[in-house]
Amino acid sequence: MEKCKTVPFRNVTLGKGFWLDRYNLNKNVSLGCVKKVFEETGRFDALRFNYLKTGRAPHYYFDSDVAKWIEAVSYIMEHDRESMRENETLIDELVDCMEKAQRDDGYLNSATQQLNPELKFKDRDRHELYCAGHLIEAAVAYYQATGKDKFLKVVERYCDCIYDYFVKEHKADFYTPGHEEIELALFKLYRLTGKEKYRKTAEFFLENRGKHDEKNMIGNAVQAQDDADMYNLKQAGGHAVRALYLYSGLADYAAVNDDEKLYGVLDGLFEDITTRKMYITGGVGSSPRGECFTVPFDLPNPTAYAESCTAVAFILFALRMRRLKTDAKFGNLIERIMYNMLLSPTSLDGKRFFYENPHEISLEDRNREVSLNPASREHFPITQRVESFTCSCCPPNINRFFGEFADVIAVEQDCLYIEQYVSSIVNTAFGTVTIDETYALDGKATISSADFKGDRIVFRKPEWCDEIDAEKNGKAIIINEKDGYFEIPAESRFEISLDFKIRPKFMAANPLVGADVGKVALTYGPTVYCLEGKDNGERLKRISLNPAAAVCVDKQKDFHGFYSLYADGQIDKAQDKLYFSAENCGKEKKRLKFIPFFAQANRGESDMIIWIRAET
Amino acid sequence: MEKCKTVPFRNVTLGKGFWLDRYNLNKNVSLGCVKKVFEETGRFDALRFNYLKTGRAPHYYFDSDVAKWIEAVSYIMEHDRESMRENETLIDELVDCMEKAQRDDGYLNSATQQLNPELKFKDRDRHELYCAGHLIEAAVAYYQATGKDKFLKVVERYCDCIYDYFVKEHKADFYTPGHEEIELALFKLYRLTGKEKYRKTAEFFLENRGKHDEKNMIGNAVQAQDDADMYNLKQAGGHAVRALYLYSGLADYAAVNDDEKLYGVLDGLFEDITTRKMYITGGVGSSPRGECFTVPFDLPNPTAYAESCTAVAFILFALRMRRLKTDAKFGNLIERIMYNMLLSPTSLDGKRFFYENPHEISLEDRNREVSLNPASREHFPITQRVESFTCSCCPPNINRFFGEFADVIAVEQDCLYIEQYVSSIVNTAFGTVTIDETYALDGKATISSADFKGDRIVFRKPEWCDEIDAEKNGKAIIINEKDGYFEIPAESRFEISLDFKIRPKFMAANPLVGADVGKVALTYGPTVYCLEGKDNGERLKRISLNPAAAVCVDKQKDFHGFYSLYADGQIDKAQDKLYFSAENCGKEKKRLKFIPFFAQANRGESDMIIWIRAET
Repeated sequence: MEKCKTVPFRNVTLGKGFWLDRYNLNKNVSLGCVKKVFEETGRFDALRFNYLKTGRAPHYYFDSDVAKWIEAVSYIMEHDRESMRENETLIDELVDCMEKAQRDDGYLNSATQQLNPELKFKDRDRHELYCAGHLIEAAVAYYQATGKDKFLKVVERYCDCIYDYFVKEHKADFYTPGHEEIELALFKLYRLTGKEKYRKTAEFFLENRGKHDEKNMIGNAVQAQDDADMYNLKQAGGHAVRALYLYSGLADYAAVNDDEKLYGVLDGLFEDITTRKMYITGGVGSSPRGECFTVPFDLPNPTAYAESCTAVAFILFALRMRRLKTDAKFGNLIERIMYNMLLSPTSLDGKRFFYENPHEISLEDRNREVSLNPASREHFPITQRVESFTCSCCPPNINRFFGEFADVIAVEQDCLYIEQYVSSIVNTAFGTVTIDETYALDGKATISSADFKGDRIVFRKPEWCDEIDAEKNGKAIIINEKDGYFEIPAESRFEISLDFKIRPKFMAANPLVGADVGKVALTYGPTVYCLEGKDNGERLKRISLNPAAAVCVDKQKDFHGFYSLYADGQIDKAQDKLYFSAENCGKEKKRLKFIPFFAQANRGESDMIIWIRAET
Repeated sequence: MEKCKTVPFRNVTLGKGFWLDRYNLNKNVSLGCVKKVFEETGRFDALRFNYLKTGRAPHYYFDSDVAKWIEAVSYIMEHDRESMRENETLIDELVDCMEKAQRDDGYLNSATQQLNPELKFKDRDRHELYCAGHLIEAAVAYYQATGKDKFLKVVERYCDCIYDYFVKEHKADFYTPGHEEIELALFKLYRLTGKEKYRKTAEFFLENRGKHDEKNMIGNAVQAQDDADMYNLKQAGGHAVRALYLYSGLADYAAVNDDEKLYGVLDGLFEDITTRKMYITGGVGSSPRGECFTVPFDLPNPTAYAESCTAVAFILFALRMRRLKTDAKFGNLIERIMYNMLLSPTSLDGKRFFYENPHEISLEDRNREVSLNPASREHFPITQRVESFTCSCCPPNINRFFGEFADVIAVEQDCLYIEQYVSSIVNTAFGTVTIDETYALDGKATISSADFKGDRIVFRKPEWCDEIDAEKNGKAIIINEKDGYFEIPAESRFEISLDFKIRPKFMAANPLVGADVGKVALTYGPTVYCLEGKDNGERLKRISLNPAAAVCVDKQKDFHGFYSLYADGQIDKAQDKLYFSAENCGKEKKRLKFIPFFAQANRGESDMIIWIRAET
């Protein structure tokens, strides 16, 4: 079934431009910041198994945090091992510790072994299999980057143990993981090693889901994705990150088993999310209570959760779906996340992170429950990024995804598909293709090759694009779009220049989205813009605008080199009275400055809105 | 200082019309429903002090519930003792029980005495003084209605005990009540008996507030009104009902002590609430967490708390303020509450009640956290009124207020002021005045007298009124408004006809009210209207309208004889996509039916909105 193959990041060299800058910021700044915090908080110590010496108790999710960081380092090593020497030494040390600490039966979990050995596979809530999943992914990545197999062998022994406990002998106290992730990891290990046992374990976890009376983590069966078996998942529900990891594992299942029916189920879930349960930024999981999907069109802005990990998990799901089927909607979704939710978690200086991503900030609102016990207050996301969190899953997840980010660019199938316009040199079965772009700034990309082996090349047409100017080898050509793609005949040497005619565009939401009805959001190509109080005065809800207003693009570059946008809006006139005849409403003209959503909250605390009242 | 005297309800006979109907519904239906529930839930048993026999433990606020009901019965007895014979027998029985159970030192609390005698005046949270306050009010009312003084004597002995414990000997574990109410009750008792001790106790509680490190009930000093002494109350904060009872007690203090400075403080609090912290319905206390006032302009609709008791407490405060100073704003506020928040708590059939009063209902929103533990869900008010609550303070509060409702109509000072247009015969020092009105329906009132003793009569000009047609004795006269009032010369016999030119009017809110900005609410005279899903289809946020739209008044009477209003609005066109170019937004014309806010939720569950998006 998997007839399409995404060109792996190791075959791609990012070229000068926006995404290489992001890649380097992650590599040179963010990765080190996360490392420092992990050292300080005893996360590396967890895998040094030295609790007796330090007295610092590892949390049961620490293994996964460190594993994601190792995975990040490994991906970077594939292009620049030298820069990671110090990290490689640390990883080798940790692997040695793990090997020494691993139990005879293969079990490996720093928290359980050091603190609660009696809880081994007894408590579904303790993230053991989730940690195992991340250790598997880390070990596979580290092996592929270095050729060293000690970590991989440790992990294989652990997977053998898991197989025995769950699949073979049913000795564990639960059937399926409390927090999904290991499923996709086991498929990865299966693909690397070819060992059926790992595939069987993954399939066991997926096939048994929703069939047992499991102990749940938070709330009910929906929250825990235990309400239906895999063929009966009709709507995205429950904990959003877990759901998306589950769906990713199921996509691997569908690929390995050529399971069209399951693809249909997953396509339904993808549609449910993208047409009913997703912020315009690509953020999902709107409720802070349970970090979960809720009912269709429930996308409140001030309390938006939109966990950073969902950006990674949703791209991983979409990439797997794209390998199953040629459909531009997957690339469209990935692009939406890339320019918004993927960037939002990291501060512009690369040093601080959001766990929840604010989709509206009203500082005043946050003070409203001054008179109450903080424990019972409404939960709002924090307004400024921080260095680390008690539960710090997001920062290393962002770290690792940037390492393998280039996976999103191209797909090989009957011909080469360019899915994302990212400056790079992509080595494919169809030859080496160079992409040179100022895509998100000026809507332009040049794609060239000097050794192309196909007769055509297919491009995803950006969802936001209404008109394309194209040239091949300096001559204008006509573009015919079909199902979100367009193809151009290609010779062994070609240079195709595309101009997607980027322009500011006001977007509206389905009127069933109560939070956004009657409002518009400004976008520029793939990038969602917002208003900040810093530029426009606080209490931004007073602002309205006519969506037909001219928007001026200020080419002076701010915020990672992005443009600011300006438009004339209005602000409701101040009033003395609390209530007054609507005849006495008044508005004053106001020049509005818009900045990219991802750049919010980098200049101190401020109000922020994406959705602005539309004058109609 | 108290130069103005509200004409007491006992000097007023309500005349045929809307308010007499409401009065009778309360008397003939609601009072009995509350009685039935109180009997069933052991509330009367609490004051029978028969816990050992029934085994049903009284809650520590049961005394106050029953006391309010006794107060209600007493007020009704003043006009129709016969109809209350059965209730009088019950009250006499309860008074006998109280007299028997009362401790030698005068202490009287059914919960503490029967369950936790060791907690007597030890725990500020246990509502002992709050219950005492309501017992005082009940005893005063019952004495005034019947002339029987047994209850009054019981209560006086209790007040002597309180005086000893708090004022004289400081034997209690706290200085001031956890839940205010007793202050205004003690002033009432002082006024009846002339005994300085009761005045001193009231003053002790007020003067000591904010000066001690009290144990708080919920949250912090603001929540408990312990953050400032009485002269330094700068903004309305904390638990709204407690705040308003406190302010009422302080207004009594200002009256008794001719304290202009304190009046200024209270006027500041009144302004803070009415210009920053009040729903258009007169509802206050916007947060369900702590039932409290929050920050200025924080008036969220879907989670509005607006406790029913605040309607009563706020009118009691405003009436006391009106006795201190001639200002139309107090009557304006009382009118706003009368036609909205005072009626909203009771179902149209008089049998069921709201504790919190919904200001927006979206049934869909309430299902959004399906996947979560109910305990952690967002708190929304219930969508349908019920017979009783575990904490059932509101229904008997509504009961008792309707009994003394006619207090709001007229004020005697240098001349007679008509504050509220309510059909009635008002016996005043200036003679007997008859009011005959269809005020809220047609904006008309006729005021006449055959034995008038003043040279003029002053009328409050309704806040919503832009134009008045007036006739005296059949001849048109010119109205000159000054500071919200207008006066008309009066002879011993006159008939004044007023036409306030009532019309539907769209109102807007101060743009700092984030919840309502860009929206309008339809009012008709004093009455706030709303849209219900029953009439207009669910998901009402899709609706918008032009505030210049013509509104048609359907004179067919529904809902307590009120008119429905109709206007042409629009509904956003259904869309397939979640996000789309704002150019593709579309609207469809939709005829909208508005009903009075107080009449909401009487036809089964439905969405409801007051504030509708304005097309601009």
